[in-house]
Amino acid sequence: MNDVHYDKPAARFKLTRVGVSGIKKPIRVTRPGKETQLTATIDLYVDLPATHKGSHMSRNAEVLEEAITDASAGPTGGLEMYAAGLSRALLQRHEYATFSEVHISADYFLEKAAPSGRKTTEVYRLAASAFGTREPNRIRVKKSIGVEVIGMTSCPCAMEGVRELLSAERRDCAGMLATIPVITHNQRNVTSIRMDVPEGSDVEADVLIDIVEKALSSPTREILKRRDEAELVLAAHRNPRFVEDVVRGVLEQVVERFASLPGDVEVSVRSVSKESIHKHDAMAERVTTLDELRS
Amino acid sequence: MNDVHYDKPAARFKLTRVGVSGIKKPIRVTRPGKETQLTATIDLYVDLPATHKGSHMSRNAEVLEEAITDASAGPTGGLEMYAAGLSRALLQRHEYATFSEVHISADYFLEKAAPSGRKTTEVYRLAASAFGTREPNRIRVKKSIGVEVIGMTSCPCAMEGVRELLSAERRDCAGMLATIPVITHNQRNVTSIRMDVPEGSDVEADVLIDIVEKALSSPTREILKRRDEAELVLAAHRNPRFVEDVVRGVLEQVVERFASLPGDVEVSVRSVSKESIHKHDAMAERVTTLDELRS
Amino acid sequence: MNDVHYDKPAARFKLTRVGVSGIKKPIRVTRPGKETQLTATIDLYVDLPATHKGSHMSRNAEVLEEAITDASAGPTGGLEMYAAGLSRALLQRHEYATFSEVHISADYFLEKAAPSGRKTTEVYRLAASAFGTREPNRIRVKKSIGVEVIGMTSCPCAMEGVRELLSAERRDCAGMLATIPVITHNQRNVTSIRMDVPEGSDVEADVLIDIVEKALSSPTREILKRRDEAELVLAAHRNPRFVEDVVRGVLEQVVERFASLPGDVEVSVRSVSKESIHKHDAMAERVTTLDELRS
Amino acid sequence: MNDVHYDKPAARFKLTRVGVSGIKKPIRVTRPGKETQLTATIDLYVDLPATHKGSHMSRNAEVLEEAITDASAGPTGGLEMYAAGLSRALLQRHEYATFSEVHISADYFLEKAAPSGRKTTEVYRLAASAFGTREPNRIRVKKSIGVEVIGMTSCPCAMEGVRELLSAERRDCAGMLATIPVITHNQRNVTSIRMDVPEGSDVEADVLIDIVEKALSSPTREILKRRDEAELVLAAHRNPRFVEDVVRGVLEQVVERFASLPGDVEVSVRSVSKESIHKHDAMAERVTTLDELRS
Repeated sequence: MNDVHYDKPAARFKLTRVGVSGIKKPIRVTRPGKETQLTATIDLYVDLPATHKGSHMSRNAEVLEEAITDASAGPTGGLEMYAAGLSRALLQRHEYATFSEVHISADYFLEKAAPSGRKTTEVYRLAASAFGTREPNRIRVKKSIGVEVIGMTSCPCAMEGVRELLSAERRDCAGMLATIPVITHNQRNVTSIRMDVPEGSDVEADVLIDIVEKALSSPTREILKRRDEAELVLAAHRNPRFVEDVVRGVLEQVVERFASLPGDVEVSVRSVSKESIHKHDAMAERVTTLDELRS
Repeated sequence: MNDVHYDKPAARFKLTRVGVSGIKKPIRVTRPGKETQLTATIDLYVDLPATHKGSHMSRNAEVLEEAITDASAGPTGGLEMYAAGLSRALLQRHEYATFSEVHISADYFLEKAAPSGRKTTEVYRLAASAFGTREPNRIRVKKSIGVEVIGMTSCPCAMEGVRELLSAERRDCAGMLATIPVITHNQRNVTSIRMDVPEGSDVEADVLIDIVEKALSSPTREILKRRDEAELVLAAHRNPRFVEDVVRGVLEQVVERFASLPGDVEVSVRSVSKESIHKHDAMAERVTTLDELRS
Repeated sequence: MNDVHYDKPAARFKLTRVGVSGIKKPIRVTRPGKETQLTATIDLYVDLPATHKGSHMSRNAEVLEEAITDASAGPTGGLEMYAAGLSRALLQRHEYATFSEVHISADYFLEKAAPSGRKTTEVYRLAASAFGTREPNRIRVKKSIGVEVIGMTSCPCAMEGVRELLSAERRDCAGMLATIPVITHNQRNVTSIRMDVPEGSDVEADVLIDIVEKALSSPTREILKRRDEAELVLAAHRNPRFVEDVVRGVLEQVVERFASLPGDVEVSVRSVSKESIHKHDAMAERVTTLDELRS
Repeated sequence: MNDVHYDKPAARFKLTRVGVSGIKKPIRVTRPGKETQLTATIDLYVDLPATHKGSHMSRNAEVLEEAITDASAGPTGGLEMYAAGLSRALLQRHEYATFSEVHISADYFLEKAAPSGRKTTEVYRLAASAFGTREPNRIRVKKSIGVEVIGMTSCPCAMEGVRELLSAERRDCAGMLATIPVITHNQRNVTSIRMDVPEGSDVEADVLIDIVEKALSSPTREILKRRDEAELVLAAHRNPRFVEDVVRGVLEQVVERFASLPGDVEVSVRSVSKESIHKHDAMAERVTTLDELRS
């Protein structure tokens, strides 16, 4: 059959990214001591030179199907290793491309504990990316791993405001109100972090999840009996945090825990609160490198 | 041109609903003292007898386009009147249909006040429906109007739990803690109500919005300076409410405010809290009639 | 701790449904010859009498966590068996409830073949529900299983229209144009079916997926090399289908394949085409029983 | 009241962006000869220095409310002018910020014509952005306007494949099949373009919409009677286009129509087809400048 993709295009412009998005596949990843099956959503792109009318998109789907078959045969490493393998295979298969890009995201479950120690299965979201570049004698791949964590923030500003209001109203309690956490607004928060994973290094998604949960006013848990609920709520109010504080708290831990990673590692952190007092969200973000954070 | 829609279908089954969904149009509605332009999303369906292969869906789009032209010429009444007109026109245009169904939803804005009286523009969601039935000599239409309101709930159960915990920890404050609202979890809540609007009656969307805002722990406002914020948060904690309480609070006001409506008016109320302490939502719902509520 | 949920509510109304929605969990289901892990989204509700202020929602999460533990211990049956077990457990745990409702949905993968026989992994969506009712000496459970299938429809009406236009323009080809499938609009279609699964009966999700794929103009496949693509496209145009035809085609097969199921089994089928020639969707639906379909 | 936002943060990191997202407001924009009311969704951010604990997010909502009041008083220009005004006001209000960012998107309606000339109201999506930078003696603002257009693509590759298959099958028709457009897959496509609008220049959203509709296989229309439908489908098949072709077709027109704009104007174009033969989407994108496109 005549392959139209190799025709000359009518308009001579190269394209930055061409490919398929929103492919869903079951993916099996392996981490030390465990193997996890994920329902992943995947995007696969390569660039396209000005000389080619079309990219062979069916090759993207083939590369993915083969990766699934390979993965079921043996250990794959983490999700960012999976993405890296795909970005490499894309450049091998699309001989005209100089660049490839892969994004994979999936729900992910961990067993965590409520304040009482009771076990609950918690859901997180993983997001891995890989960017391949064709160099004269090799393919270079840059990869990253990220997590998205649902948790809780309680507002430090409204807590002070309420303390003042309540103290003015109840002068008999003012002394005591200065010594206990008081009412504020709190809400569901979604915080995500993404970090480059340099060749030969390891960044565990479970560690990133732990970092985020420590930076929130409190993590959330799916099962909370009455005492657990009260303890979690109280803990969240002993640790009131703006979205700004959450982002900075994540960055602080990143600097501490990844001291051995090179300085050019890119890090981005974003925290979004579904404000309980507003119909809109509050957001804070930092896009940076380890070098900048260390200086 | 030969019209395939009138062909006999291969399989002889009637269909419950056939039509178009997700049409977006600008719609102009008129209420006493104001005229509002809405960006509406619309679904239009009729039934299809077993004898017809296809429904003439382009007629649905035509009916809608004509309604827009008519509406720009003169007053239309509320969104449910608009839906009723469409359901009637659908049955006139689809001569083979015995039933029609119309759904319209749109963002809607009202000027409200923060606790300080400061004006803010707040967003709500309107939802109107109409169901037409062809009877021997006429078309009968049943219509409803609904609103969706974003607000705030604070949890009465966790408030008691925290009070107990704090009192045990701080025996010196136990007496005072019994007399003030204390910490609990609070969160963004989305509560909706939908009510039939019988012929000749009037149910104002603005009244339904007011009813829902009164049933929440507190309404939310888009602009809150520090004192406003503290007052709103404190008010919400003086009025802790489960989603169950919100639904019942709405029902109670419906019974009071719509005493003159007939008993067969259907009412449904739903309240969903984006729980700040969980990754999932809490929901309460009542689907009923005024007769049931009054008994 | 004092349990506020057992307090008398301020307003005395029973509630139709109270519970948790959007819980994500890993679920393991077993079918003859295979075991599948799913990433499921789950809603769990019970009713609430007028005498109780609140439903104990943490019990819903507990019931679910226990089901996950039980499921990892042994075979569970299909997703609707899983839902049925949850609806039963909800009524056991909520002693005040008379009704329970469970919804579970999850992406699901099957190996299918392109026209050339080439294997591809295809994604579908499963949806199971169960409704429990407390009767004097037992709990009665009604359950259903459903699938959502993405496929392709090509329009029979536009095909006739184009045939007429082209024949008028090219009178030399009119004879031939009457004997081959010609151009029409085709598009992504999402068709779903849901059926009750009576006690002691079996309705396989894989069979429902097969039924839907046969009723479409063509199923879609994730990997199509050029010849596969041409064959699939041609097959879809030899089988042009309105959304109305798709629904009727599914119903026809349901009557044939489930001849042994009782007549009160409820069946609902819905087909939605993301019309390529419009910005809106086309939809057809039938909500019925096997009795009605057989008559 | 004590303002916690001015406190020193626990961790000393500056933040890239802090603000509010998802605010919905009615916005009135004016273009030559018309005034349009939009239901807009808006994000407003500024940066935050390492010395400040929190950004005063209520100022963002105030800036927006004031802009709405101002806009109702007089002409505002296009949506990107509105965004530019907001980005400037953000820097005036947040004295500690050096950077501001504003995004506004809204549904937008235009009257268009079906092939027969029949009028239909079509929906598009507008997206404007503005980025403000504080310089020693002034605030510099960079703004852009974009549109998102739903249309139709028909695949050139499958058309050739089907032509070969059909010709092999029907050797009697091979000659004729070489001279007419034949069957292929076609689908709903969403193409967007975004362009910088330099100070003193004008880029009309209506022109961008026209450019995109010309680059597609065919625009779509909400009302198509049978002949209109056949003509639109036939036209789309006389103009088969990959997503790659659509992007290049847009770029070609941009170079022609905006010859007077400076070379550093950034342009990004993206085309996504909801493939009718796959469960996933196909995407092509170019991110570039006018200088690059002109070379």
